Amino acid sequence: MSTEAVATSPTPRAVKGVSSHPLAPLSASEITLASSIIKASWPAHTDIHFKVITLQEPAKSDVLPYLEAEHGGKPLPAIGRKAFVNYYIRNTSKFHEAIVDVSSGRVLYNQLLGPFVHANGDGEEIVAIEKAALGDERVRAEIAKLQLPEGTVVVSDPWIYGADGVNDEERMYQCFLYMRDPLNPDEADSNHYALPLPISPVVSTESMKVIRVDLLPTGADEKIKPIEPYQIKPPNEYISEYQKLRTDLKPLNVIQPQGASFQVAQEGTSSVLSWQKWTFRVGFNQREGMVLYDVRYDDRSLFYRMSLSDMNIPYADPRHPFHKKSAFDLGDAGAGIMANNLKLGCDCLGSIYYLDAVLSDDKGGVMPMENVVCIHEQDAGIGWKHTNYRTGRAAVARSRELVLQSIITVSNYEYILAFIFNQAGEIDYEVRATGILSTQPIDEGVEVPFGTVVHPGVLAVHHQHIFSLRVDPHLEGPNNRLVYDEAHAMPRSDFNPHGIGYYVEETVVEKSGGYDLDISKNRLFKIQNPNVRNPINGKPVAYKIQAPDFQKILSDKDSFNYKRAEFSDHNVYVVKHRDGELYAGGLYTNQSRGGTGVRAWADRKESVKDTDFVLFIQMGINHVPRIEDFPVMPCEILKLHFKPVNFFDKNPALDVPPSEQHFNKSSLLSENHHQPSVEAKIGEDGACCAPKL
Amino acid sequence: MSTEAVATSPTPRAVKGVSSHPLAPLSASEITLASSIIKASWPAHTDIHFKVITLQEPAKSDVLPYLEAEHGGKPLPAIGRKAFVNYYIRNTSKFHEAIVDVSSGRVLYNQLLGPFVHANGDGEEIVAIEKAALGDERVRAEIAKLQLPEGTVVVSDPWIYGADGVNDEERMYQCFLYMRDPLNPDEADSNHYALPLPISPVVSTESMKVIRVDLLPTGADEKIKPIEPYQIKPPNEYISEYQKLRTDLKPLNVIQPQGASFQVAQEGTSSVLSWQKWTFRVGFNQREGMVLYDVRYDDRSLFYRMSLSDMNIPYADPRHPFHKKSAFDLGDAGAGIMANNLKLGCDCLGSIYYLDAVLSDDKGGVMPMENVVCIHEQDAGIGWKHTNYRTGRAAVARSRELVLQSIITVSNYEYILAFIFNQAGEIDYEVRATGILSTQPIDEGVEVPFGTVVHPGVLAVHHQHIFSLRVDPHLEGPNNRLVYDEAHAMPRSDFNPHGIGYYVEETVVEKSGGYDLDISKNRLFKIQNPNVRNPINGKPVAYKIQAPDFQKILSDKDSFNYKRAEFSDHNVYVVKHRDGELYAGGLYTNQSRGGTGVRAWADRKESVKDTDFVLFIQMGINHVPRIEDFPVMPCEILKLHFKPVNFFDKNPALDVPPSEQHFNKSSLLSENHHQPSVEAKIGEDGACCAPKL
Repeated sequence: MSTEAVATSPTPRAVKGVSSHPLAPLSASEITLASSIIKASWPAHTDIHFKVITLQEPAKSDVLPYLEAEHGGKPLPAIGRKAFVNYYIRNTSKFHEAIVDVSSGRVLYNQLLGPFVHANGDGEEIVAIEKAALGDERVRAEIAKLQLPEGTVVVSDPWIYGADGVNDEERMYQCFLYMRDPLNPDEADSNHYALPLPISPVVSTESMKVIRVDLLPTGADEKIKPIEPYQIKPPNEYISEYQKLRTDLKPLNVIQPQGASFQVAQEGTSSVLSWQKWTFRVGFNQREGMVLYDVRYDDRSLFYRMSLSDMNIPYADPRHPFHKKSAFDLGDAGAGIMANNLKLGCDCLGSIYYLDAVLSDDKGGVMPMENVVCIHEQDAGIGWKHTNYRTGRAAVARSRELVLQSIITVSNYEYILAFIFNQAGEIDYEVRATGILSTQPIDEGVEVPFGTVVHPGVLAVHHQHIFSLRVDPHLEGPNNRLVYDEAHAMPRSDFNPHGIGYYVEETVVEKSGGYDLDISKNRLFKIQNPNVRNPINGKPVAYKIQAPDFQKILSDKDSFNYKRAEFSDHNVYVVKHRDGELYAGGLYTNQSRGGTGVRAWADRKESVKDTDFVLFIQMGINHVPRIEDFPVMPCEILKLHFKPVNFFDKNPALDVPPSEQHFNKSSLLSENHHQPSVEAKIGEDGACCAPKL
Repeated sequence: MSTEAVATSPTPRAVKGVSSHPLAPLSASEITLASSIIKASWPAHTDIHFKVITLQEPAKSDVLPYLEAEHGGKPLPAIGRKAFVNYYIRNTSKFHEAIVDVSSGRVLYNQLLGPFVHANGDGEEIVAIEKAALGDERVRAEIAKLQLPEGTVVVSDPWIYGADGVNDEERMYQCFLYMRDPLNPDEADSNHYALPLPISPVVSTESMKVIRVDLLPTGADEKIKPIEPYQIKPPNEYISEYQKLRTDLKPLNVIQPQGASFQVAQEGTSSVLSWQKWTFRVGFNQREGMVLYDVRYDDRSLFYRMSLSDMNIPYADPRHPFHKKSAFDLGDAGAGIMANNLKLGCDCLGSIYYLDAVLSDDKGGVMPMENVVCIHEQDAGIGWKHTNYRTGRAAVARSRELVLQSIITVSNYEYILAFIFNQAGEIDYEVRATGILSTQPIDEGVEVPFGTVVHPGVLAVHHQHIFSLRVDPHLEGPNNRLVYDEAHAMPRSDFNPHGIGYYVEETVVEKSGGYDLDISKNRLFKIQNPNVRNPINGKPVAYKIQAPDFQKILSDKDSFNYKRAEFSDHNVYVVKHRDGELYAGGLYTNQSRGGTGVRAWADRKESVKDTDFVLFIQMGINHVPRIEDFPVMPCEILKLHFKPVNFFDKNPALDVPPSEQHFNKSSLLSENHHQPSVEAKIGEDGACCAPKL
């Protein structure tokens, strides 16, 4: 990287005094201030293409004393506000990284990046790329050979170019072409993924011109055939007008007559939530979307920071240009900027509170993002129960959950991302994968072992989804350790004469690195604070991580896919904390070449024992498409759990009020239950869990 | 086994004519008829202790034509009704198995079983064992040495004796003693598991007398110390009177103003459910509890029969007598007879329909079982979603589920068992483990690697829960196959020059046996009908089984634990169908010695390809107790999924009406949301998922 001169003249528009919380996202005025400071550092009329203007989080070592003061009701230290900025000189390869002190109005750092360092895509750019691809003469000439019906609308899906080391220094998009139903071309929501075309233009973002037109292999091998006239195939629409909808689904409403049990304190651009002994701060940024900070239960600290760090989706088709399909949806696009505007009654059910956010646009202005997080409570069935068979008394508590949900659309796919809290001191992170399969054309009668035909002429290629959740623990203090338990059979001995004994052994992870689950040993990772002991059993307080195992990345170790997806080969990465090391695939994933992400950090082989470490926890799906996944796939759900282990002195949900009819107001259905009966009769004392025997 | 004379004179009370469905559980009159026929086959005044009187299911080859006629609206073949009966001559070891034809009133078969064949426990017996244990002089003498406070109530938990081959021919119970809080002895619901005693009487069921009093090791080794005076320890109560309950949880009600979307047709002792294109018949019996029969979607057959077959819970402590703790909660007790009477507003939320059942009691009479299954719908979040980023139109459907839930109490533990259906053609089987840990005394300051101290002086030993779900598939007909997919990296080649390709390979399971998951290969089992092809892609119709992997039984292969728990060592067992082979651990698990369950059946090495086969699918938890699991543990949830693979021609939930506010009636919460706002304003057309861009 070469360094450029940093503009030294502060602008007159610096924000005086600091009132925002140090972890609050940039405000609208901070965003525009940062961009104007950057603009002012360049000659007038320089056309700057802003990619990201986001909070540069202060050093953790500065924030921790602040949080301590905040929770202790003491005077708060002043922490300056800084913006992290990425920008191009528009339509050049000149990609910059800068830090602006918005408190003082100074550019602290400003650097030209590269080579092989490229920015994420953005919405405005993607629309421009679509136009460039479809406007190109060579592309039009290839489309003409298809002899599509008059009026057919061709659609271009720009894809991040990936990287394979073959002439890929330049920043490009690989566009895949589709069409709307040619017999119904006015339907703007026609599912074009059901009608893929074998033409794939490549567009340079420097020239914004098509630099190559690839034709796609459509047989079982890598052969490319010249474009032939298109034979009409049926559409496969997902919007409701084209379905014969079910008519026998009755409404189900979730009512909270006294309102919700959570409180939201909106503090500028961040929000502090409190619910059932939990408190935490919610931020939101372009890349990660939702970020949780300072997560506490009953005012005991658990996590400094939690967020989805990145995801990688490598595809199985080895043929050019499909082999380059390996998206990093956070690094290449951004979970924040792709967040859906969630609608009441559509995306959540019940009593809903929405969070808004402000992000930046490509001109350095503000992009208001409404309803990007929805917050609600849900019933999660029985939380715990025991019936004393001697007295017949049942003690039962339902489990209430608090959900923070965000939904992102990344071109064809959707991800529904949620942090879920419960009353037993547990946090879940849930991913629902839905949306539309990325498709490509296939000749009639052809089958391939790397994909599934999901519609006549349509191949959906197998692909992996590998998610990396970043967790910065702070379990009762800064010096934690990662340990794992394993269960082993005892050898036969005088102590174990019948060969049935087993024991659990704990191992401390000493060094940074990638570590794996082993179900044959029931291996279980725990975050532990050895300095804080359980008052009853003397064990160190801990939280365990229950994450589903998954097949690691299948691309070989010499491949660009493997080198780039630095989190894809282990269930857990643990590294020593360093400020700024937030993204498992590295800061810049677009056409990246590896070596800048978590695998590289782990390779420092630093001690992670009894110090400040960070975890990257992976979950994955090897998505072998079924025809049932088309035209929109039913959610595939992944869930990971953080659960206390000897952190409390008993079941922390023991104080949840008993589940009783006067509170729950369920309805008894009779055999002909077209209308629910009136509220069921209950015992004189209102208790419903009466003796059975 | 020796055969006894079968009574040849039919009683005059035969049920004339057959009106019940062949899969309907025995009715009250059929139960009493069967017992009276058995009684009549013995000399007058013979005291018979009935263990089980349950439906002897007709041969599948007889039922299939019946079901075909039923669904085709054709005349129904007559199938006689038979009862399966187990009984003892009371207080002897004479254990019998009989089949009674209740249509004709004849005993078809009646056999004395043994040796080493013993019946399940039953409620009346357990109460009698408790009394025998506590009434014994030697036991009282040991208790006296504890010098418990005046009025202290000692409680006995009879345990199935397990089997270790050491003097265990006789049928016995091992009782573990506890006490209620000695300072609060009148509290009948005091949690005695918090106050375990080191005395363990063994009771013979033949003599109903204590035959041995074991003292328990309470240190780190197997040494037994004489009983010493008890030092008062604190209680650890779970009932609400002893908690400082949370006061900030607001009600959350689930309302179905137009009633539920399912129909229940009550046909005698079984019920036919229909919901969202699903139909199936629900039975209920002493051993398995809920059984589903004839499961269809859109009138396409999927499963002939589904039920929990058994579960095994081996404990890790190798010391006598704890090494014998290895319960089979279905075979040793019964998921039906242990089912809770579910209470409105306590165990389910929303609009609830309850199923009752009738089982038999120990005298051959009827045990009415009310509310053993609760049925309700629940919202399961978003089912599928896609937003067209070009138009901003979001298409979103919520997922509605139908839940059939049953809860069983087996002494200390509870299991919440549920079949869950959704609109995408999927069936889940969910297990929630809750209840109270089985505890034992431990000396102060002692730690052991095979258990966790969960309260002063209380050890909760590690244990495995291994569940076996029996699935008898009938996917579009009788001749199915089990296959598995694996995903493998492609070797580098001209076809795969970048090393990123991978492919999926399908393997047919040819022979009966135990088979395992392998996440490193993404191995996935599917039930397939090769004779029925998907009309679009030509693939055989299939259902995949997504089951979580688990650590197999840790007891060594020579142990009684391993030999008895015949399903505990593989993720899946597949066997050729034979009538009557229903229970993975064998028909009689109490003090069993192995060789009569699914491992033995699989060892026949029969072909299971394109024929009638049965699956036993295992799930498991290695429960390493946390202090948070005491005094009642938060639910630990396991879930397995059956999902269509190329069974439909597209997403079967595509016809679910869009998720819209006029249907869902959610409430918008403002920042001070103590009361929800009025219904949110929606667009003129009532649509809420309006364009965002």
